[in-house]
Amino acid sequence: MAGVTEQTTRVPLADLSPAELEVFLDRQRAAYQSLLDRGLRLDLTRGKPSEAQLDLADRLLTLPTTRTDADGVDVRNYGGLAGIRQIREIFGELLQVAPEQVVAGGNSSLTMMHDCLTQLLLHGAPGSPRPWVREERVRFVCPVPGYDRHFAMLAHHGIEMVTVPMREDGPDAGVVAALVRDDPSVKGMWIVPTYANPVGAVCSQEVAAALASMPAAAPDFRIFWDNAYAFHHLTEQEAKSADILTLAAVAGHPDRPLVFASTSKITYAGAGVAFLAASADNVAWYLSHQQFASIGPDKVNQLRHAEFFGSAQGVREHMAGHRAILAPKFAAVQAALSAELDGLGVATWTKPTGGYFVSVDVLDGTASRVVALAKAAGIVLTPAGAAFPHGHDPHDRNIRLAPSFPVLDDVQTAMTGVATCIALAAAEHLQARHQTERSTPEDASLES
Amino acid sequence: MAGVTEQTTRVPLADLSPAELEVFLDRQRAAYQSLLDRGLRLDLTRGKPSEAQLDLADRLLTLPTTRTDADGVDVRNYGGLAGIRQIREIFGELLQVAPEQVVAGGNSSLTMMHDCLTQLLLHGAPGSPRPWVREERVRFVCPVPGYDRHFAMLAHHGIEMVTVPMREDGPDAGVVAALVRDDPSVKGMWIVPTYANPVGAVCSQEVAAALASMPAAAPDFRIFWDNAYAFHHLTEQEAKSADILTLAAVAGHPDRPLVFASTSKITYAGAGVAFLAASADNVAWYLSHQQFASIGPDKVNQLRHAEFFGSAQGVREHMAGHRAILAPKFAAVQAALSAELDGLGVATWTKPTGGYFVSVDVLDGTASRVVALAKAAGIVLTPAGAAFPHGHDPHDRNIRLAPSFPVLDDVQTAMTGVATCIALAAAEHLQARHQTERSTPEDASLES
Repeated sequence: MAGVTEQTTRVPLADLSPAELEVFLDRQRAAYQSLLDRGLRLDLTRGKPSEAQLDLADRLLTLPTTRTDADGVDVRNYGGLAGIRQIREIFGELLQVAPEQVVAGGNSSLTMMHDCLTQLLLHGAPGSPRPWVREERVRFVCPVPGYDRHFAMLAHHGIEMVTVPMREDGPDAGVVAALVRDDPSVKGMWIVPTYANPVGAVCSQEVAAALASMPAAAPDFRIFWDNAYAFHHLTEQEAKSADILTLAAVAGHPDRPLVFASTSKITYAGAGVAFLAASADNVAWYLSHQQFASIGPDKVNQLRHAEFFGSAQGVREHMAGHRAILAPKFAAVQAALSAELDGLGVATWTKPTGGYFVSVDVLDGTASRVVALAKAAGIVLTPAGAAFPHGHDPHDRNIRLAPSFPVLDDVQTAMTGVATCIALAAAEHLQARHQTERSTPEDASLES
Repeated sequence: MAGVTEQTTRVPLADLSPAELEVFLDRQRAAYQSLLDRGLRLDLTRGKPSEAQLDLADRLLTLPTTRTDADGVDVRNYGGLAGIRQIREIFGELLQVAPEQVVAGGNSSLTMMHDCLTQLLLHGAPGSPRPWVREERVRFVCPVPGYDRHFAMLAHHGIEMVTVPMREDGPDAGVVAALVRDDPSVKGMWIVPTYANPVGAVCSQEVAAALASMPAAAPDFRIFWDNAYAFHHLTEQEAKSADILTLAAVAGHPDRPLVFASTSKITYAGAGVAFLAASADNVAWYLSHQQFASIGPDKVNQLRHAEFFGSAQGVREHMAGHRAILAPKFAAVQAALSAELDGLGVATWTKPTGGYFVSVDVLDGTASRVVALAKAAGIVLTPAGAAFPHGHDPHDRNIRLAPSFPVLDDVQTAMTGVATCIALAAAEHLQARHQTERSTPEDASLES
């Protein structure tokens, strides 16, 4: 295969002599030209389910078979701001919370997050000194790499973002605690606790407990706990989400977490049901504002989903179908990256056991170049830096790969192509460094 | 029938002697006791479609038959923030506007109104001196009687309401123009232009043109044009909504109107599709904010509706089915109120040719008593004053009747009961006045 170096003979690119690097670079350029010649048109930008995944839920198209929910309410008519009981029961069980602490909403959990944020901005919460929009400044703790839409929402509303490193067991709780303890302008934090976007990390019980119990200077500090991938396992080692609501209640901060989930990546990405789970007081707070914005959610779609799943176990079983489709694609990503890049010392990447993404760290300063090279070859990736506030990756290092949408063959093709781009960008970068060193020997000597 | 006075012999209650009034009152009390004895449980509080109306749309439950829209987009997946083209075309034609000027949203036009309002509060519009939340005060012109949810939304966000009288051809445009011309704190106004809630008025072309062209001190003055009942005719004399967007564009204020509509009272009240129609700049403004709150609306439900209707003509034809169900109920309201109250001089009421409500003005100071009497008899009406800001009717005079939801027999029963309550409350009120006059003869003589 073009561009593949025998793994056994690979030497880290940084250790090659200028002449050896020149040879490598020529081969990568040839491989890249072959890629260009294929005229690909592949889109790996977003964590979208594939057509085959959507098909798994097509029974929805002839549901519901009934017109009334378990309480005898006609789902076709107005009302029921908190959503129908049946679907709240199913997702209450899955989210480890009583149905009364679950609100079933429309088709978008992002909308529910945004609703919570605008309520806090315009009105605050019980215990807020004032509406957030009346504060001098509002800051959020943002684990990075993270979800671009989370950061874009904050930026849009003028909220400052303070980044903390994301680790394998969740955000660095010590760093978070230090930020939150003394600064009342730190009003909240984002977290994708399970199979995080994009790094795949699972927030451990210990980290969750630390976040739930840490002292906060802001009396209305909120954790936006976006559990988008709670049930989205890729292996038999199924991660169990930390029960943040119980942990927070036990720690004396019952209103701290706002938990979000949806069926967007369970049934239909565009026509699922979204959920907010929170303390009873937070649910009352949310509804006390939403009553001015809505007479009720789409209960027909909620009943459609309740009939489709039948139970919490029905959701779990349904997810096995997704895993069967997704796992080979994620395996293909690993295989392609390993085949092309192992031993070169130009990239590391995650091996997620769930979720929708593989996060790649390439040679510092080359992520943008990789994305541009891939785009020119017809492989569209999430923009470099997208996983950081304001789209700015300080090291220009991180790339988010989203292999869910294309069919398996295309994932293999795309990932081999991406690996070619990574190696080419790295070689270009190292060659440029060699040339800089040659042209400024005095600087080089000063450094040594 | 108990409580019915022969129409030919009726004398206005105010003209009865104290003794005659006492006789009338006794008869009304007896009629009311009979009403109590029936143990009714009827709810006429809200403008909800009946089960029979909802049934008209039940073909929706097995739609859509396809998974892609006319542009080949898989409606089940993410994306398409403005909604699918097919449904925008159908409602663009109905709302007299290009599809590009229509956004198809979720299940609630109230939500789209609230979204526009919160965008204006938090960010303002192009041309706003500052976000509305940074203004000293923000005021809205509110035609009364009007829609309680409109007023509640404003009150919730601390926006002051200035009432103007609603007339048969819409709000008093002269009064509105005077309020808007010199006061930059007057940022907007509500209007239900067609078959207004609750008075049934239809905003004339002349009034609409005046509202579209009047000078406004606020550069970002907005008309929230809630055309909820645009196609909801009760007779063959179908009102045509004024084309506010064209009128405003011609008058040089293209961004002034924000037009809202939905299928809530066309298909399913809780599971329809809502629409925003506006200038191209306003559509861009709306989407530029909504992109942070949503990845897209429920396109499956939009395609379901597009297939169900087929065309704009399909919507018009579907509305004939609603008319067939609703017209007899509205006729029953007229018949019952006339039978019980004609000639008594204690109430006037509207005879709407469309929409969902009959607005009754009872004797000043008795509306609350009527609603309380009805409630005690198991007939739940919209609270007195609901059609006014903060629920305060300065004359305690207006009652909104919503006959759509109960079956025809129940409407007849309820309306006869309401009429009994109206006459009883009026007689009580007049008797109390007689007694006051007797106990304070010196005041009475001073007045004469």
